[in-house]
Amino acid sequence: MKIRIGQQNPEIGNLEKNFRLIEEAVHAAESADIDLLLLPELATCGYFPKDMLRHQSFLDEIYAMNAALAALVTDMTVIVGSITTNNGGTGRNCFNSAIVLRQGEIKAKVHKTLLPTYDIYDELRYFEPNHEFRCITVDGRKLGITICEDIWYNYSQPQYHVYEVQPAKKLVEQGAEMIVNLSASPYVHKRHEGRLDILHHNVQDLQVPVLYSNQVGGNAGLVSDGDSLALNAKGEEVARAPMFQEATIDLQWQGKKLYGKEAALAPIPPLVKQQFECLKLGLQDYLSKSGITDQVIIGLSGGIDSTLVACIAKEALGAENVLALTMPSHFSSEGSVSDSERLAQNLGIELKELAIQDVFASFMNTLPPEFEEDSFGIAEENLQPRIRGILIMAYSNKFGHMVLNASNKSELAVGYCTLYGDMAGGLSLIGDLYKTEVYAMSRWLNEHHYEQEVIPEEILEKPPSAELRPDQKDSDSLPDYELLDGILKAYVEDECSEHEIVSRGYDLKMVNDVLSMVDGTTYKRAQAAPVVKLSAKSFGPGRRWPLVQNWTRGGVWEQ
Amino acid sequence: MKIRIGQQNPEIGNLEKNFRLIEEAVHAAESADIDLLLLPELATCGYFPKDMLRHQSFLDEIYAMNAALAALVTDMTVIVGSITTNNGGTGRNCFNSAIVLRQGEIKAKVHKTLLPTYDIYDELRYFEPNHEFRCITVDGRKLGITICEDIWYNYSQPQYHVYEVQPAKKLVEQGAEMIVNLSASPYVHKRHEGRLDILHHNVQDLQVPVLYSNQVGGNAGLVSDGDSLALNAKGEEVARAPMFQEATIDLQWQGKKLYGKEAALAPIPPLVKQQFECLKLGLQDYLSKSGITDQVIIGLSGGIDSTLVACIAKEALGAENVLALTMPSHFSSEGSVSDSERLAQNLGIELKELAIQDVFASFMNTLPPEFEEDSFGIAEENLQPRIRGILIMAYSNKFGHMVLNASNKSELAVGYCTLYGDMAGGLSLIGDLYKTEVYAMSRWLNEHHYEQEVIPEEILEKPPSAELRPDQKDSDSLPDYELLDGILKAYVEDECSEHEIVSRGYDLKMVNDVLSMVDGTTYKRAQAAPVVKLSAKSFGPGRRWPLVQNWTRGGVWEQ
Repeated sequence: MKIRIGQQNPEIGNLEKNFRLIEEAVHAAESADIDLLLLPELATCGYFPKDMLRHQSFLDEIYAMNAALAALVTDMTVIVGSITTNNGGTGRNCFNSAIVLRQGEIKAKVHKTLLPTYDIYDELRYFEPNHEFRCITVDGRKLGITICEDIWYNYSQPQYHVYEVQPAKKLVEQGAEMIVNLSASPYVHKRHEGRLDILHHNVQDLQVPVLYSNQVGGNAGLVSDGDSLALNAKGEEVARAPMFQEATIDLQWQGKKLYGKEAALAPIPPLVKQQFECLKLGLQDYLSKSGITDQVIIGLSGGIDSTLVACIAKEALGAENVLALTMPSHFSSEGSVSDSERLAQNLGIELKELAIQDVFASFMNTLPPEFEEDSFGIAEENLQPRIRGILIMAYSNKFGHMVLNASNKSELAVGYCTLYGDMAGGLSLIGDLYKTEVYAMSRWLNEHHYEQEVIPEEILEKPPSAELRPDQKDSDSLPDYELLDGILKAYVEDECSEHEIVSRGYDLKMVNDVLSMVDGTTYKRAQAAPVVKLSAKSFGPGRRWPLVQNWTRGGVWEQ
Repeated sequence: MKIRIGQQNPEIGNLEKNFRLIEEAVHAAESADIDLLLLPELATCGYFPKDMLRHQSFLDEIYAMNAALAALVTDMTVIVGSITTNNGGTGRNCFNSAIVLRQGEIKAKVHKTLLPTYDIYDELRYFEPNHEFRCITVDGRKLGITICEDIWYNYSQPQYHVYEVQPAKKLVEQGAEMIVNLSASPYVHKRHEGRLDILHHNVQDLQVPVLYSNQVGGNAGLVSDGDSLALNAKGEEVARAPMFQEATIDLQWQGKKLYGKEAALAPIPPLVKQQFECLKLGLQDYLSKSGITDQVIIGLSGGIDSTLVACIAKEALGAENVLALTMPSHFSSEGSVSDSERLAQNLGIELKELAIQDVFASFMNTLPPEFEEDSFGIAEENLQPRIRGILIMAYSNKFGHMVLNASNKSELAVGYCTLYGDMAGGLSLIGDLYKTEVYAMSRWLNEHHYEQEVIPEEILEKPPSAELRPDQKDSDSLPDYELLDGILKAYVEDECSEHEIVSRGYDLKMVNDVLSMVDGTTYKRAQAAPVVKLSAKSFGPGRRWPLVQNWTRGGVWEQ
């Protein structure tokens, strides 16, 4: 049996485009004499349509599309992820399904059993879980179909411990000779390693080959990374699709043997390059799928954050599609402009300079006497990023570029950023990179990615500063980033208690202060630009924190 | 048996404060010889702690608090909503429970069965559902305890049709002589009527009295409205607590008879007054629970939206806690300032005037020549609300007032508002009121609420305008609000298809245009101020729409 895994990049809701993608894949597979074509989870409607699924008319269009897809298929078998109706049965009105197409018909529908409802996932909001297990037969061989989460049963992290049934095992008990998995799995840190690990677990447990067909592509804050895989019954990887691009992998399955057509193991880039590729694709697809513009605008401060954003944008879109503004104030260091100029030159992007002191002065003239240089404080500081926010939005409105936000995860976490100022932007590219990771990626770009130095060493070396008052340094207000980021990761990603964080070696008062800053600035993040997810827990819909809460976290009730 | 329902206003996460609230209620009930005290769902931790529930240390504090609460109770029985551990059992690690306290012990734990996971609700993200049904016994009588959603089984709206079991019926089958329900139910339009209806359904179906103990109070965008109720076995309301305030209701239960201590039916205000009270309490509690400030600042444009926000704020916080800014430009009508002055005078609030033309001119001087009066467009228009946004945020930063946003639901829906400009603010008070509802509430205030006219008739009569260019009117860009709001309600709240909306009597092209505006401005609402919920579907976490999607909605695949 010749099997092909198609690693597709569908668009949410764009049923016409997704139909064409599938149609092309079907025709290409026919030409290649493929017997079984696997396409990813929700390849028909994209991942994830959210409350569009509450519109019956949207569901009805998908059901009609399912039928139209069946009509494309003659002798081959195609298994594609879609949505199917619960037909008025008990529970929610639809399923997250694999539809099995052959000879012009939908021969079978297999529904997802384990519906992730944690982090960014809300599948129990929409889908009825599957309760019945039945294999399908292709060319006389029995296959067990699973969908994404179904194969993650009981994996090491706690979110996988809530399930009561192991779908793949049920299917093997019913005679499945192979497990097939359709996924729409977003990139997170070390996802490849986790994925390989769980696939190995499945193979070891079930003693059958496992095929994994993943989506690729960015959908606002989520980027599916591809990395489709095939493991034979010994747990050997026999094929692997590249990360962050559309691809197919072809396999032969005969008797107990499963092998790739050639030595078809795409390379796995180092982690920092994975992150870079993820952000690149995230930006490309955000623009191409939203269809508003091909161009972005970035405010360059001479600091490392906006520098990295400019580097990613240039690589994603081409230098001609990236415009930069430098907007110095009387508090800006000389390097703010000169370093930005060198960076822009190195990147080949256009840079415009708009000094903000005149506008700042006119604000001070307009505001009443309580606002003055003598009592210079947070209000006067915040005026500056907000003026810059207005200027860059004016460019955006005038010329159509989307504003790229340059907040990093550390400053978003502690609220060291100004609402409607430097927090402005249509997309936050590095909002899931801690400051230390921003430095790491920047250094990696200079040292391993570029042929010659692109990021001026001055930018990498200068102490971080918002430059909103004379001689201001981030370190006046925040712990060293090494310490801060360690505490933040423990709190935000690992969901540790204060006590647990202290036991990792941090000072109690510092931990208290940082946690208070995080909790106390939830209101700012509620209005932040959407963040491209890179970690297990990014800000945005994956971390739902009450806007107003008063947990004393004092252990008043500890026993 | 003497029964008391306590309608409490807990704070999310503030376990100390909530403990004291419960402690006071227990002591007061003891003094009043109460046999059974009912307190609302999640009275220990507030509704809803969201991802705080993923912190084991938070859960552990609640479990310790449960034990401390038990120690308060001697002869009486107290049933209070809290969280209890799943003790390592299959599934999620905790339950949304009622704990039954007597003689210093937790005598029983009853878990919520139906876990709402739609609209703003995410309960399956956190809680394991109950599968076992057992009554508790109080003074020799069998009670069936349910929690909120549990009694809404199979109610008329589709979200209630997903459940497989009717908890109250199971309990009555086991001999329950009364159903008790602990709730934390947020206000939505006609909630009282729906609640009374479902309680009647339960009584008719089960032939036992039903007691309903609800939370009251605002938690960011959600306001629980109280309205605790008691129905006897004939379905007669024998007691009803007031809406939007803390309260207790006392009942006698003897044999089959259940009656209130006095004629204790609190009045139900007319709908528009309910909305007004909801917004008032929402604002009061937002400030008091976040603890940042008692004061707000509002930009008064002379239009109806900011006018209504000022009226609500004055009533909620007192005139001395409301500061207004009028920020005219050269495009502002004379009435923009003079009507605002009259309004401020009528409300007794302070008004400051900051003209924005100098700042506007300095922006135009700073921006390159492409920005000029000759090519005046959206960029130059948006400068104005953004300058106002900066000025009002400067006041907020300087003096500590929270900025109240004044966007209404109609303009939020179609994106007729400026990011980082008039969309700025810490809380959106009227973001769930369509423009036509803004008018209705304003007229109601003038005609029924105030002793004399407070809102100048000019404000009520002038045609809506953003006043961002000469002679601009909302009607240049948008359908009449009567039509627009009808289409929006059909799409956003009733989740109708284009076809269904047209069949309600709207023009196809207009419907298409409006739906495109709604979908195309999702990115703006992603950064909007949090909205106080009033309707079945408000913008915010209750409506989850993909940021980027391309549903053609053309019915390509309709059959």
